[in-house]
Amino acid sequence: MVYDAAIIGTGPAGVSAALTLKANNKNFLLLGSPDFSDKVRRAERIANYPGLSMVTGAEMNEAFRKQLQDADISVTDKMVTGIVNTGEHYALMAGADFFEAKTVILTTGVAAVGTLAGEAELVGRGVSYCATCDGNLYRNKTIGVICNAARFEHEAAFLAGLAAKMYYFPLYKNPGAVGESAEVMTDLPVAVLSDGKRLNGVRLKSGTELPLDGLFCLRDSVSLVTLLPDLAMENGHIATDRAMRTNLPGCFAAGDCTGRPYQYVKAAGEGNVAAHSAIDYLAEKG
Amino acid sequence: MVYDAAIIGTGPAGVSAALTLKANNKNFLLLGSPDFSDKVRRAERIANYPGLSMVTGAEMNEAFRKQLQDADISVTDKMVTGIVNTGEHYALMAGADFFEAKTVILTTGVAAVGTLAGEAELVGRGVSYCATCDGNLYRNKTIGVICNAARFEHEAAFLAGLAAKMYYFPLYKNPGAVGESAEVMTDLPVAVLSDGKRLNGVRLKSGTELPLDGLFCLRDSVSLVTLLPDLAMENGHIATDRAMRTNLPGCFAAGDCTGRPYQYVKAAGEGNVAAHSAIDYLAEKG
Repeated sequence: MVYDAAIIGTGPAGVSAALTLKANNKNFLLLGSPDFSDKVRRAERIANYPGLSMVTGAEMNEAFRKQLQDADISVTDKMVTGIVNTGEHYALMAGADFFEAKTVILTTGVAAVGTLAGEAELVGRGVSYCATCDGNLYRNKTIGVICNAARFEHEAAFLAGLAAKMYYFPLYKNPGAVGESAEVMTDLPVAVLSDGKRLNGVRLKSGTELPLDGLFCLRDSVSLVTLLPDLAMENGHIATDRAMRTNLPGCFAAGDCTGRPYQYVKAAGEGNVAAHSAIDYLAEKG
Repeated sequence: MVYDAAIIGTGPAGVSAALTLKANNKNFLLLGSPDFSDKVRRAERIANYPGLSMVTGAEMNEAFRKQLQDADISVTDKMVTGIVNTGEHYALMAGADFFEAKTVILTTGVAAVGTLAGEAELVGRGVSYCATCDGNLYRNKTIGVICNAARFEHEAAFLAGLAAKMYYFPLYKNPGAVGESAEVMTDLPVAVLSDGKRLNGVRLKSGTELPLDGLFCLRDSVSLVTLLPDLAMENGHIATDRAMRTNLPGCFAAGDCTGRPYQYVKAAGEGNVAAHSAIDYLAEKG
């Protein structure tokens, strides 16, 4: 089936867009974490969200969780790793899964951790964001795995089981054992290296150049540049107009990914506007 | 004293701007109704405001009231009838009161009832929005009073006590007695008439032309055209950029008055952004 919309991200912008699409009887996917936004969860106290007086981030997430449940909206727990505009609609890759939607609403937030220099250019040519999709390409090879959080360790372990040698770069404290082939590194990558065609290694902080056949980056969110390469950006954010339209027809954006101020209610407001613009777009397309 | 900001309107946009200015230690006025937004209060059930699941309008207003109280923010119960940009800051007239602020945030909503044809051009020349400011100019004269709600009847009664003859045009049901000089009319005005210099009457729906010395329009909100004549509009709404800046330096806008969708969380989001832009503006001006 082709959904009316795919919302990518479960922060306040994504939750808001979902509630508005639901109120307008659209069939849509809300793709992201069932734990909602990490950023929200870490917020100690939110002083200026109208309607929720001085809540903690955990309380805000709980209010969202209950509200989505009341509205019969479920979160699809997948990380979108690529989007292709087929002309007719959007095809979304999420690991081994594949979805189609007439519109896309990007509510991906701002990545807490940046990408490596040169990384975006080598996606599909030695750089991967998805262990289960691409792992088999690196059977008995030498790979690097950059892992942003302990919850991706099982993906790292899967890769460790395939690779002849794995350099493991945990970006979190107290990493667990991921496999016999894995060497845990503290000297972290700062740039990717290529032979002009595909990745052939990484440069580490110390200056060491480490030869690799492949590099996996296991993160919460994929950089927008790599997700949708034709998307117009402005000062590091997605460029939108007041209706939250991007440069791509049928593609809308809302929340921190569209720029400052990084505020919950700004994100929620934009999610609402993006949903309305998607509804208008669907009506025009007939 | 000159305030950092004056927020005009107490709907979700105004409440949101106030919470954000307060969180940033600004001194500001929140001008409007202590009952918050009429439009919100009349909402039967709100399905898509993130954080408040399926609340009634009255419940949303109560949440806002309590939140402002918790934040030690009070509403100044005045209707702003005119704004002048002095170059240095903004001077606000509210009946007989006068305030000064470095920035203005317009959150005036969209008027449920339109203005009369030709009305805006004659403000200060026979058309008034303020009984206590201008009533004495019409002592022993013949006036018309258009009244949008029963709660303005005391202003109408004040005018009835001054005028020789008053034509009273209530736009609500079951009007009370406003005074001996008042004749309650059911044939309502559709246009103002002028001698080229000032108002000299109104045309009624029946086609009758009624000679008048003055016309008072008692409404919740004054049309933006009359409030701030230099404000740039677009399709009947205040033109803003993504930072909620209007064409006037230091003047910002948020909520329904900036355009569709007319949605509570969109208004609240824009109020937040307008407040941040006002804070940025204050910082730049030093």
